[in-house]
Formats: sequence, structure tokens, C-alpha cells
Amino acid sequence: MSGEALLGFGDGVVERDAPGAFALEARDGAARAGTWRLAHGVVHTPAFMPVGTQGTVKAVAPHELEALGAEIVLANAYHLYLRPGHELIRRLGGLHRFMDWQRPILTDSGGYQVFSLASINEVSDEGVRFQSHIDGSSHFISPELVMEIEAALGADVIMALDECPPGRADRETAARAVERTQHWLERCASRFDELAAERPVQVLLPVIQGGTYLDLRTESLMRARTVRDWSGYGIGGLSVGEPKERTYATLEGLAGELPVAAVRYLMGVGYPGDLLHAVRLGYDVFDCVAPTRNGRNGTAFTTAGPVNVKLAAWRDDASPIEPGCGCWTCGRYTRAYLRHLFVAGELLGLRALSIHNLYFLTELMRQARSAIRSGNFEAWASGWLACYGSDEETR
Amino acid sequence: MSGEALLGFGDGVVERDAPGAFALEARDGAARAGTWRLAHGVVHTPAFMPVGTQGTVKAVAPHELEALGAEIVLANAYHLYLRPGHELIRRLGGLHRFMDWQRPILTDSGGYQVFSLASINEVSDEGVRFQSHIDGSSHFISPELVMEIEAALGADVIMALDECPPGRADRETAARAVERTQHWLERCASRFDELAAERPVQVLLPVIQGGTYLDLRTESLMRARTVRDWSGYGIGGLSVGEPKERTYATLEGLAGELPVAAVRYLMGVGYPGDLLHAVRLGYDVFDCVAPTRNGRNGTAFTTAGPVNVKLAAWRDDASPIEPGCGCWTCGRYTRAYLRHLFVAGELLGLRALSIHNLYFLTELMRQARSAIRSGNFEAWASGWLACYGSDEETR
Repeated sequence: MSGEALLGFGDGVVERDAPGAFALEARDGAARAGTWRLAHGVVHTPAFMPVGTQGTVKAVAPHELEALGAEIVLANAYHLYLRPGHELIRRLGGLHRFMDWQRPILTDSGGYQVFSLASINEVSDEGVRFQSHIDGSSHFISPELVMEIEAALGADVIMALDECPPGRADRETAARAVERTQHWLERCASRFDELAAERPVQVLLPVIQGGTYLDLRTESLMRARTVRDWSGYGIGGLSVGEPKERTYATLEGLAGELPVAAVRYLMGVGYPGDLLHAVRLGYDVFDCVAPTRNGRNGTAFTTAGPVNVKLAAWRDDASPIEPGCGCWTCGRYTRAYLRHLFVAGELLGLRALSIHNLYFLTELMRQARSAIRSGNFEAWASGWLACYGSDEETR
Repeated sequence: MSGEALLGFGDGVVERDAPGAFALEARDGAARAGTWRLAHGVVHTPAFMPVGTQGTVKAVAPHELEALGAEIVLANAYHLYLRPGHELIRRLGGLHRFMDWQRPILTDSGGYQVFSLASINEVSDEGVRFQSHIDGSSHFISPELVMEIEAALGADVIMALDECPPGRADRETAARAVERTQHWLERCASRFDELAAERPVQVLLPVIQGGTYLDLRTESLMRARTVRDWSGYGIGGLSVGEPKERTYATLEGLAGELPVAAVRYLMGVGYPGDLLHAVRLGYDVFDCVAPTRNGRNGTAFTTAGPVNVKLAAWRDDASPIEPGCGCWTCGRYTRAYLRHLFVAGELLGLRALSIHNLYFLTELMRQARSAIRSGNFEAWASGWLACYGSDEETR
């Protein structure tokens, strides 16, 4: 089966060359390949976004991200608001200049971080009163303030403030989160439009909530579309503790409801197996700390599954992490050397594995894109997953 | 005063193109500029050697060392013998291949490390019985074993085993260390010669001991020269806790005794001010963990003295660490961003400051070399030191 060619445009509201424009190039089954045009460059999808929470992808430098093929990185408004402060970053020329990264950036709104990291004092329609996870200081964020923070940071894509309940939240809790997320979205949209004059060219995306209740997800989506027809949709509140089969069922159901011409950003998903399943279900863009966090913990992604580099079996192993891998690390270092670096507690090991794992996911998305464009995604993905096994470390 | 041109060769025993050959190109006062020809390349002196204790310069990758101009790095036989083991490194093709560094390497013998890190059980003419600082395991190293370890690692320059007493050791202790170091040197030389057939092209250098007693230093040097006329001399047991004025007095006195045509390696010295003083006294090659350790602790070397990057004064500072600095870090990052990385505990900060500090010392040695060759070393060095102040952090 060859992939369907050049869908997109025509059924979306974004003009072809406007920032945020998503052009669907091919479909193969539900899987999609496209291009996402942003102020600082084009992102080819499916795409994985490395996470630079505090304005730096942990252990990796911007030129290394470019070299491994990352076309966009994520940063967290919540963290940068608390430290060093968004106004400071604005004064220093914005986040791109601050961190020396000239390709696109997406900033998360801080909704997820407030609900997972901070100590919450009060959540209301007005916003969230919380205490900083860093120093316990009191803060209040509103949808309007989040738009101001994200405008100051100057990312290409900014996310609306959402309420993110735990993955096993009951229906009532999930429904309340949908309601509040919608209310906040409307206020985000108003403030976003007001800020147009004083902020760089940015794209605002809503976050769809609703837990694993498909009808709530659909409601969240439909209500977001009453505000405007967005150029993309963030899917939040998944991969946050719910059973995996419910994640996939929700994603599959929701995919049928999402507008074809809009980019679909599945937030917080980033283990290789999960990523490929989500691409298969029709999602385009992903982020997760998994590749860097696992790298720093000594776990390397390989096509045969995740591996612990400290294993005694690697002691004398003169091969790279993954034979044939094109990353900086595999081009230079043996498993024996990487094991030595981790056993000896050397910083270069953290960098080497982070780069390898980020390359691994980036390359996985490149291969998925190629398979979708040539119409053999299903065969390729099945073969890949059969070899890979599970996201659990097996050796 | 223009520098004296092209001394060297003629009064040394090393042939011009043999590994280890040192060619003195210029002298200006006591300061010297030369080239040191080694199996993996040429080192231009004065030169600072970044320290890669465990087969990696902490937080920095080999290509970054090349880019900042490092021509040789140091690694520690003691650490690599304990972990991952010298035989393992030999099986994997030697230390150059293991750590992916193709320029010269010098390995310290482990004498200093055994006496400073390990728990010593017994020191005799036979060698040292000690317990590993890593896991408490028992080991015995002899001069012969040290030659075997260093042959297996395959560095360009290897150091003989020495006994390194504390900096404030009394005369009797210092004299005993000279005696034992001489005994060990003779045994190292014999084993080194025997190993010639099975080891790569290497240069063995003796270590001169004698504390801050100039007559003992002279005796140590003279007795080392009875073994053979070495192509270079390591000066050990200084900068180990003795008062600085005694260090300098010892170095000045010893410089007059050292053969002109041999390279002079002052071990363990590496703060900018100390380095420049030692160059002025006629020393050629240096190593120290100071630039990388200070970098990881958030201290940046600048021409106005060391600076703590976490200072509140850097919060909004859009300038680089050092305006005009040619290093990777100063070409990319503001003081404000570097401060943020350190305050937020981000790994990129450790790398950025380590690279800056290594570049700073490497560039300092390049400038010293240029000043010596053009005959204005004293004026340049006085001006530099007046601006720099002290090696103590002052801001």
C-alpha cells in the first residue's frame, strides 16, 4: 500500500506559510507524515522533542542536538518562571538567545508541573495558588499570567494552561478538569490575542483533557474548537499513571475525532515502544524526559530493548552500544569504555548516553516518517516492535 | 631583550626526531619556549596538560580538548590500574583508542596517588602495599609492575614510580624519599628496557624528589642522571602543602641544575598565577586538576582573577565570562545563563566552565610562548600578573 499523498490544507484554518501551519504529506493506515512550519524553522513529523526543562537539555549542548537531528526542543514555563524568571530571559533577548538554540522551541504551560511538582494551595477558575518546589515561596498563576510568561520566553509554540488530574482520576475529577481547562483556554486565547503586538510570532495550542474517558476527551476537543479552529492540539493527561491499554484505547478513539489538518502533540510520551504505537495511531509530535533521564541513569536504548550499561557483560565489549548506529557516541566509544565511565562516575558517560538515546528516538521517528511516506509503515513497525520487545529493561 | 634562539640539541642525548626529543627554540631570561616531539604528535611548550585521571577529562570530550588547543593530556596509572584495569585497556587497543584521544598522553606513575589517596600498609624498597581507595581491596605495586601498567596503557610519556612525602616533611623524610625514589628509578629503567619489544614507543621520565631542600633536590637530580641522561625530568613533591615561597625558591635553585636540553615537567601545578611564575623560572610542562575542579565548583578563571559564577552580580549580566575570550563557552553563553545553569544544577554548566578554564590556561601558555619567542616575556608577564592579582577568588 502506498501512502496517501498531500492531504492537509483546505480543511484547516491556517494558511500554508503562516507559523504553525501543518502540512500533511502522507498517510499510511492511521499513521501520518507531515511538516510543521514554525517561526524558527520546519519540523518534519513524526517528531520527538528533546526536553530542556530549565532551558538546557540535561547533559547535552545545542550543537549536539542539531547534529543528532533534533528540529525542536521543549522547555518548561513553570521552571523558567520560577528560575531564573521570564522577565530576565526577555531582557536577555528571549529563550532562543539565552540557551543558544536557533531552531524552534515549544514551551509547556506549567499546568502539568504545578500539579505534579508544586505544593498546591488552591485551584479555582481564577488560577492556581501554589508553593515553589524549589524554595517553598508562594505564587499564583492565572491563564493570563501563563500567556505573559510564555510571550516573554518567546518560544515558537506555546501551550494553554490546563488542569492535569492523575491518570487514575475518577470520571467526576476528569470532567471537572475538562471544564476548568476549557475556561482557562478561553482566557488564554483572549490574553494571547491582546499580547500579539508585544510578543514574537507565536502559535498557541490548546490542551485536550478528559482522562481515559473518550466521551470527555471528545467533549474537551469539541469545546476547544468552539474557541477557534486551532492549528494543532496538545493531548495532555495521558501517560500519567493510567494502565497502558487505556492510554492506547483513548488515543485510538480520540484520533478519529481530531481534525486531519491539525498537528497532534501527545504530551509526555517518549519511550521507544510507546512512541511507535502512538505514531501508528496517528499522532505527530512527542516529548519526554525518558531518553535523557534514562541516559543519566545508565540505560541505553537499543533496537533489542533498553540495556543497563553497567552490566558486567559489557566489561570487555569492544562494540558500540548499537552496531550501525550513526550517533556521536556509537561512532567513538565502546561499551567497555561507557561502562567504565558509569562505574567510575564520570560526567562524559551522562552526556554520551543522553546523546545516544536522543539520537535513537530521533532516528526512530525519521524511519517511521520514511516508512509512512513509502507506504510500508505497518510492516516496518511490526518488525521493529518484534525485535525491540518491551520498554522494560530486559538485560 | 630578544629571546635567545635555537638552543637545545647537542647537549642532550636524544636525537632530533626520536620520541621524547625536546628542542629548545628560545629563551627569555630563564623562561623557555620549545617543542616536545612525542609518538602521537608535537607539544609546543610552555604547555598545560589537562588531567584525565580516569581516562576522561572530567565533563569535557576529546574533540573539545582539541578545539581549545590541548596538545597532550595526563591520565593516572594508579586509577586505571584499579579500574577498569590496565590489561583490559591493553586488550581494547590502549588508552588512546579507549578514550578516543589521538594526541599525546602522559601517565603519572601512581606514586603520588598511592601516597595521597590509598591507605598505605607498607612501603619498602620492594614497593608499596596499599588498600584501594575505591573498595579497600589489597594491592602491591612495585617499580616493575608500574612499568608494566604504563606499557599496557600505552601513553607517549610514562613516569617512573616515586615516593612523594608531604610538603612539610622534615629533612630526614625527604632524604629517605630521594633514596627510595632513586632505587625505584633504577628498577623502573631496567624493566622499561626489557619491555621495549612488547610496548609501543614510549618515553620514560624520572621524578625528582627532595622536598624544599635544594641540596636534596640537586642530589636527586644528579643520581637520576647516573642512570642515564634523560630527555626530561619530572619535578614531584611540590605544591603539596608547603609554603609557596619555599616552592618558588626550590624551583629557582633547581632550574639552574637541570640540563638545558631536557624538558622540565613541574607536576601538579596549574593555577594561573603559579603557572606563570613557574614558566618565568624556566619550567616547560604542567598539569593540575585546578581548571576542571574549579570549573565544576562554579569558579571561572578570568584575567582579573578567579570569579564565582553564582554571584548575584551575574544575574542579569549579558556579557561572556571574559570579553574577548576565544573559547567555546564565551562564544555562546552569557554570565546570566551560566549562573542560571549552576544555580539550577544543570550539567551543561560543569562542561562550559571546565572548557573555559582549560582554554584559559592553554591560551595563557600560548601567550607566554609567544612572549618568550619575541623576547618580551618579562614585560608581558608582569603586566599580566598585575592585572590578575592572586589565585584566590576575590569576587
